[in-house]
Amino acid sequence: MSQFDDEIRLTPVGPGAYEGLVDPAWNIGANPNGGYLLCLALSALRQAAPEHPDPVSVTVHYLRPGLAGRPCRIDSQVLRTGRTLSTVRATLLQDGVARLEVLAALGDLVAGTEPTITLGPPEIPPPDQCVQRSGDEQGVDLSILDRLDIRLHPDEAKAGAAGRAQVTGWIRLRDGRPPDTLASVLFADTFPPAVFGLLGVVGWVPTVELTVHVRRRPAPGWLLGQFRTQDLNDGRLIEDGALWDSTGNLVVQSRQLALVRLGERKN
Amino acid sequence: MSQFDDEIRLTPVGPGAYEGLVDPAWNIGANPNGGYLLCLALSALRQAAPEHPDPVSVTVHYLRPGLAGRPCRIDSQVLRTGRTLSTVRATLLQDGVARLEVLAALGDLVAGTEPTITLGPPEIPPPDQCVQRSGDEQGVDLSILDRLDIRLHPDEAKAGAAGRAQVTGWIRLRDGRPPDTLASVLFADTFPPAVFGLLGVVGWVPTVELTVHVRRRPAPGWLLGQFRTQDLNDGRLIEDGALWDSTGNLVVQSRQLALVRLGERKN
Repeated sequence: MSQFDDEIRLTPVGPGAYEGLVDPAWNIGANPNGGYLLCLALSALRQAAPEHPDPVSVTVHYLRPGLAGRPCRIDSQVLRTGRTLSTVRATLLQDGVARLEVLAALGDLVAGTEPTITLGPPEIPPPDQCVQRSGDEQGVDLSILDRLDIRLHPDEAKAGAAGRAQVTGWIRLRDGRPPDTLASVLFADTFPPAVFGLLGVVGWVPTVELTVHVRRRPAPGWLLGQFRTQDLNDGRLIEDGALWDSTGNLVVQSRQLALVRLGERKN
Repeated sequence: MSQFDDEIRLTPVGPGAYEGLVDPAWNIGANPNGGYLLCLALSALRQAAPEHPDPVSVTVHYLRPGLAGRPCRIDSQVLRTGRTLSTVRATLLQDGVARLEVLAALGDLVAGTEPTITLGPPEIPPPDQCVQRSGDEQGVDLSILDRLDIRLHPDEAKAGAAGRAQVTGWIRLRDGRPPDTLASVLFADTFPPAVFGLLGVVGWVPTVELTVHVRRRPAPGWLLGQFRTQDLNDGRLIEDGALWDSTGNLVVQSRQLALVRLGERKN
């Protein structure tokens, strides 16, 4: 059994309502990782619309930080069920207060299609020649790295060293569970902020909103991610990301709106 | 008074509830343009959260086509109000059936900030040397072009001519109303599908989901838009867009997930 699957397991408690635990294993400092919280919500939505298991388009707004080690409740609603897509929404609550609001289209993706147009993967050394992401950046304890194995491009592994707002690297679950479309959504929100590559560590970069498009089911093995910020204005940035599977096929495109809080720390 | 403002005017009818008319002036074929329907929903959300007038992050899922010439109702809910952002949701209904589901963060943007990192505008001839978008593509009547003046890059104005999935052009409201952040959202969903530039007219390209990030208030005058598809797989494409104002500042980044329905027509 996979730790990831264990730690997003939910119990139905009423029509469209589920309960679970926000496991502290997925913390960054004292706060649960946003991608993990999103997977808890998606775990509920998968149960609410079982005919469409794959998150095809997922938007989350992070209303308030999650509470690590505390129970959570997810209230879900199916807005429309069609032949190929279900449109769904969910609110993740803790202590009776909404933390995440999610709007998504779920579908049934395939692995083997030949794309008509596609983005190819970037060049990067193999995982064993990359730099393992460790917990000591900014002095923040990254418990999540006991769950995720992240290997950064050697030129981009040190904040400020890349000379551009870009981070590239490999990612997989440490428990050996092969990636699926749900884990691909998680991976879209677990790399260090790309803006650190240009500006160094600039403080806390909280995500306001994240949209992830999953384009196909990933092949087993590592995923390769690249994240980039080309737009930072008035304390708000856009970060674009993409993930490719071990066969070089594009699996995810992601985009998030985040705040840059100079000098603040997430711990 | 502006036609656009007139045609998105709503009347409050209860707590968070508004009513209006889906004006057929914004049709593409027999269906209202999705960007116009979204602006009706945003018009409600602006009233629901008046302290934050600018759509900063907007995601819409198009559940069912709108009904031109028919009344609409928008049910809105404020999920959270903070100092700098309000998070809100809305459902647009016609004949009692949900057509659009919107999740958004509203804020208060400024015009004059100097960006730290930005995307510059592409090269394009001035509007009077571009090709006015006309109603005769695919034989579909584009009533919306009585409201919007769209001038396409001469190399990209004919479907299939660009040799890549890209469309670039100028846009403004025909009524002379200067652009604001709301009109900028409209403009993000009113160019021809970028995929036509590569494949020619491939049928109907209905939007499943559109996310628009507005980055600043636009200066008066034309906006310049560029839209591109780099990812088309298994009948689903991602289209990325950006809009710049007349001073060359980036105003919008947009991304949509759309279906490619070969041989079908939207009329």
